[in-house]
Amino acid sequence: MTEKKYGAKAVEEAKLEPWDNPSPERDYAIEISFPEFTCLCPRSGYPDFATIKINYVPDKKVVELKSLKLYLNSFRDRAVSHEAVTNLIFDDLKAALAPRKLEVVGDFNVRGNVKTVIRVAL
Amino acid sequence: MTEKKYGAKAVEEAKLEPWDNPSPERDYAIEISFPEFTCLCPRSGYPDFATIKINYVPDKKVVELKSLKLYLNSFRDRAVSHEAVTNLIFDDLKAALAPRKLEVVGDFNVRGNVKTVIRVAL
Amino acid sequence: MTEKKYGAKAVEEAKLEPWDNPSPERDYAIEISFPEFTCLCPRSGYPDFATIKINYVPDKKVVELKSLKLYLNSFRDRAVSHEAVTNLIFDDLKAALAPRKLEVVGDFNVRGNVKTVIRVAL
Amino acid sequence: MTEKKYGAKAVEEAKLEPWDNPSPERDYAIEISFPEFTCLCPRSGYPDFATIKINYVPDKKVVELKSLKLYLNSFRDRAVSHEAVTNLIFDDLKAALAPRKLEVVGDFNVRGNVKTVIRVAL
Amino acid sequence: MTEKKYGAKAVEEAKLEPWDNPSPERDYAIEISFPEFTCLCPRSGYPDFATIKINYVPDKKVVELKSLKLYLNSFRDRAVSHEAVTNLIFDDLKAALAPRKLEVVGDFNVRGNVKTVIRVAL
Amino acid sequence: MTEKKYGAKAVEEAKLEPWDNPSPERDYAIEISFPEFTCLCPRSGYPDFATIKINYVPDKKVVELKSLKLYLNSFRDRAVSHEAVTNLIFDDLKAALAPRKLEVVGDFNVRGNVKTVIRVAL
Amino acid sequence: MTEKKYGAKAVEEAKLEPWDNPSPERDYAIEISFPEFTCLCPRSGYPDFATIKINYVPDKKVVELKSLKLYLNSFRDRAVSHEAVTNLIFDDLKAALAPRKLEVVGDFNVRGNVKTVIRVAL
Amino acid sequence: MTEKKYGAKAVEEAKLEPWDNPSPERDYAIEISFPEFTCLCPRSGYPDFATIKINYVPDKKVVELKSLKLYLNSFRDRAVSHEAVTNLIFDDLKAALAPRKLEVVGDFNVRGNVKTVIRVAL
Amino acid sequence: MTEKKYGAKAVEEAKLEPWDNPSPERDYAIEISFPEFTCLCPRSGYPDFATIKINYVPDKKVVELKSLKLYLNSFRDRAVSHEAVTNLIFDDLKAALAPRKLEVVGDFNVRGNVKTVIRVAL
Amino acid sequence: MTEKKYGAKAVEEAKLEPWDNPSPERDYAIEISFPEFTCLCPRSGYPDFATIKINYVPDKKVVELKSLKLYLNSFRDRAVSHEAVTNLIFDDLKAALAPRKLEVVGDFNVRGNVKTVIRVAL
Repeated sequence: MTEKKYGAKAVEEAKLEPWDNPSPERDYAIEISFPEFTCLCPRSGYPDFATIKINYVPDKKVVELKSLKLYLNSFRDRAVSHEAVTNLIFDDLKAALAPRKLEVVGDFNVRGNVKTVIRVAL
Repeated sequence: MTEKKYGAKAVEEAKLEPWDNPSPERDYAIEISFPEFTCLCPRSGYPDFATIKINYVPDKKVVELKSLKLYLNSFRDRAVSHEAVTNLIFDDLKAALAPRKLEVVGDFNVRGNVKTVIRVAL
Repeated sequence: MTEKKYGAKAVEEAKLEPWDNPSPERDYAIEISFPEFTCLCPRSGYPDFATIKINYVPDKKVVELKSLKLYLNSFRDRAVSHEAVTNLIFDDLKAALAPRKLEVVGDFNVRGNVKTVIRVAL
Repeated sequence: MTEKKYGAKAVEEAKLEPWDNPSPERDYAIEISFPEFTCLCPRSGYPDFATIKINYVPDKKVVELKSLKLYLNSFRDRAVSHEAVTNLIFDDLKAALAPRKLEVVGDFNVRGNVKTVIRVAL
Repeated sequence: MTEKKYGAKAVEEAKLEPWDNPSPERDYAIEISFPEFTCLCPRSGYPDFATIKINYVPDKKVVELKSLKLYLNSFRDRAVSHEAVTNLIFDDLKAALAPRKLEVVGDFNVRGNVKTVIRVAL
Repeated sequence: MTEKKYGAKAVEEAKLEPWDNPSPERDYAIEISFPEFTCLCPRSGYPDFATIKINYVPDKKVVELKSLKLYLNSFRDRAVSHEAVTNLIFDDLKAALAPRKLEVVGDFNVRGNVKTVIRVAL
Repeated sequence: MTEKKYGAKAVEEAKLEPWDNPSPERDYAIEISFPEFTCLCPRSGYPDFATIKINYVPDKKVVELKSLKLYLNSFRDRAVSHEAVTNLIFDDLKAALAPRKLEVVGDFNVRGNVKTVIRVAL
Repeated sequence: MTEKKYGAKAVEEAKLEPWDNPSPERDYAIEISFPEFTCLCPRSGYPDFATIKINYVPDKKVVELKSLKLYLNSFRDRAVSHEAVTNLIFDDLKAALAPRKLEVVGDFNVRGNVKTVIRVAL
Repeated sequence: MTEKKYGAKAVEEAKLEPWDNPSPERDYAIEISFPEFTCLCPRSGYPDFATIKINYVPDKKVVELKSLKLYLNSFRDRAVSHEAVTNLIFDDLKAALAPRKLEVVGDFNVRGNVKTVIRVAL
Repeated sequence: MTEKKYGAKAVEEAKLEPWDNPSPERDYAIEISFPEFTCLCPRSGYPDFATIKINYVPDKKVVELKSLKLYLNSFRDRAVSHEAVTNLIFDDLKAALAPRKLEVVGDFNVRGNVKTVIRVAL
């Protein structure tokens, strides 16, 4: 791939983009599911696959969805363990949104005949 | 479409119609699901699709179902975000019915490989 | 249909029949589901269809199941709304059995692209 | 029910209504499914329930869908066996539409712990 | 059947057999499901069918599984109602095991178009 | 059980009852499924369970459904193998109905961790 | 909506765009499914919803997917019957691609308690 | 495990046992499914798991089911590839039964994120 | 099998390997499911099969997944009851990890027509 | 990622490895499914995801499964269209194995609300 396409560039520059919550006076829940998460195993370098689920109650900010997709795509070439990446996504969202409630779930595909789900909640 | 059909006119004039609750002396739940909701994305103008779920405990009023269907159909040509439209339907039902309990869920189709559910509750 | 069959007559004379609870000294649950409920829409006269679910904790009496089936069949020619018929079945069972707990659910087929569930509980 | 509602009258006067096939120059299939069929058992008078499926390749005529629904509703008070009613619907559609191909399936609910499906094809 | 086979004899002599709980120092749950339960209707003599589910927290004793299977098979020729048989199995297990917690569920097949589930818990 | 109930007697006297085919001029299919079949294992005497499926194209006769249910119930106390009982039901139906086509399937529950289906067709 | 968004404009100007088939020397199948089709009922003006399925064996041309999506979106404000719209999509694809094989299926949501599927094949 | 249990011995001595076909005058199918197959990978020695399906039309002989289960259990400690073991079971059954038709399917669990099914038919 | 493969050796030497928890400052859950567990019945020596589920909140240590897989594989030749093995896995994990919360579930395949699930929780 | 892990290197050097077919004297089928395929969109550079299914009847050679997994992993950083990549995998397998029959299916995730399946067969 001699030249980066616009999508590849957008992923490279991905940053979680907070937008104003249209109804900050009220507690309500936003549930997001992203079934196309992939990163690399830190031991072997082989690809890992997961569905990332994000459930939160926004305070002043909501996450813009395209920026979230690009942010999640940006793990494609990173070597990071199941536990670490789920905690990392949790930390990044907490820092960007300061939500009233937050849960991040990493639901990983079977590896070595073992299925693993990591669940981090505020 | 040179001339409006009767259904198109009915949608245009849609208004939530409150009817008397036949059993106001008792708390009971009404759960409604409408899988054919569509509106327009406020950024792109492309169509969005969702299932709208409404669960409430009526006080003096219940919502007439045909008026609810026409009201939900009336978003077809409106540009409104996932979060905003779910909160708006919640506000309109609360104003029209003053129910004892109310939950509105906007369960939107995947966009940009991300699935989003908005859940607003009293 | 010039002459009533025995089944049609049995439905006509249907009455909820309470039997003695074989274990009144103990709280236990009876969960009943009847997927072949049909009545008529009070506005249009068109048929409506529902599954009726009855969950209760009996006190001195349990309902005899054949009498319950005939009672539910007896709504076939009656014009009654979703909300009214669910509350009515609740009232009739409460009067006949005086149960310790009672829930009646009317899970109606889609009408006008809207699905409705009515849930009445003691 | 002292007075017939408009829906009840429409069912009473139900007649299969043939419309012109918009593409008679081509063989194509129309598959219809009606899950709310009910009639009466000719022996007992108790209600029977079925899903009626109609698959056909139209020639000069297609069946108008509302007239089909009313026609199928009109069996509600008729006493007729599983085999007879499926063959009867087949005969009526064949007479009304003279289709190139026709299949009618009566998929009846369990009776006496036995499930029965009747399948009539041209 | 002129001569009893060994299995038929084993069923005839069936008795719940308590074994020592290997971990009595700890609360833990045992969940058993038996989908091949059959007995006779006390009114008609026709066969009834059910799945029996047993969930318990053992104290000093657990039930040996083959003795449980034979015990449940021994109802094959007994005439007993849905409510009575579920309460009876509950009583027999309580007497044999004196468990810390116990739930018995009789999930019976549809009869007369009605599905019934009986749920007895300590 | 000191005295036979009417259902037990009906099962004892069960006989396949042929009725006139209402549409013998036409080939059509009748598909029957009976999920509550039970007999005894000829080796051990333990109960076996199966779903029996019968698909046929009637000639002059169809089988009356209640007589079929009683006939299938009559195997409850008979010791007979999976292969033998499926072939036997096939032979009995062929003799009673002389159908144009006939298939009998015995879909037996798992025994010894092995699931077996027997399929006999004309 | 005072001003058209770029997506709305793209839909307005939608045109099926044929691209060169990368493997014209070989018969292979392309199966496309679009679950977000909506148009208007030509009688009432109420919205209709369907999944459109397109299966074809390309000759010299394949359809570019974004142009297909815009083309299918362009029916949102058109009043057209189930049969007509399925045949029309078939004709447009046939004209644009001249495929070796083509099937178009319109799988429409229930209307008036009737589900309809239209299937047009070359 | 200092001493072999009777089951372990039975597996050790496992041999496919042919029994007389009770209906050799007729073609009929026997479909067997065994979801608890396990053997060892010939490269790594790690355990493999599969469901083995056997479909055949018997001639003079059918396979006795307990001997089949023991035969399939006897692969537990053998190192053999997916392709080889499926062809081997096929050969053994063909030799033992000389059936009119025979299909053996090895439906193996995912290994290295790849799922494999081997299908051998006469 | 004259010579042990590397996988067989790895299973023989299996030992639960604790690794440092990357986020010990936070309560979060790890849910593991292993569908390929097999051991031997202590009475008969026949193989048993189960899915083992492990849910825990780590404190200072998490379990390395490959060491867990090898540890679970090491039961393949051990004779141990359903209750005992589930409690044993629980004890081993508790000793190795000292987790804040721990649940181990042994979901065993049907034996003698009975399905059993053992659930041990801290 | 400063240094390549062994898995990453293995993917880089991936080559389909043909092994001898253990039963070349017989036609039998091998069905492979790989749900973790990902490549890049040639227009945007965004990631695409698919399940690749390969069904073939081997002649002299079968494909070694680990080499197949590495080969499929090697598309992770390549920009290639749905149609092209499915035809390419087909060509590579045909060249490497010269199978008697071959089918390759690319079952791609939804993009732009459109789901696409490409099916290439010999």
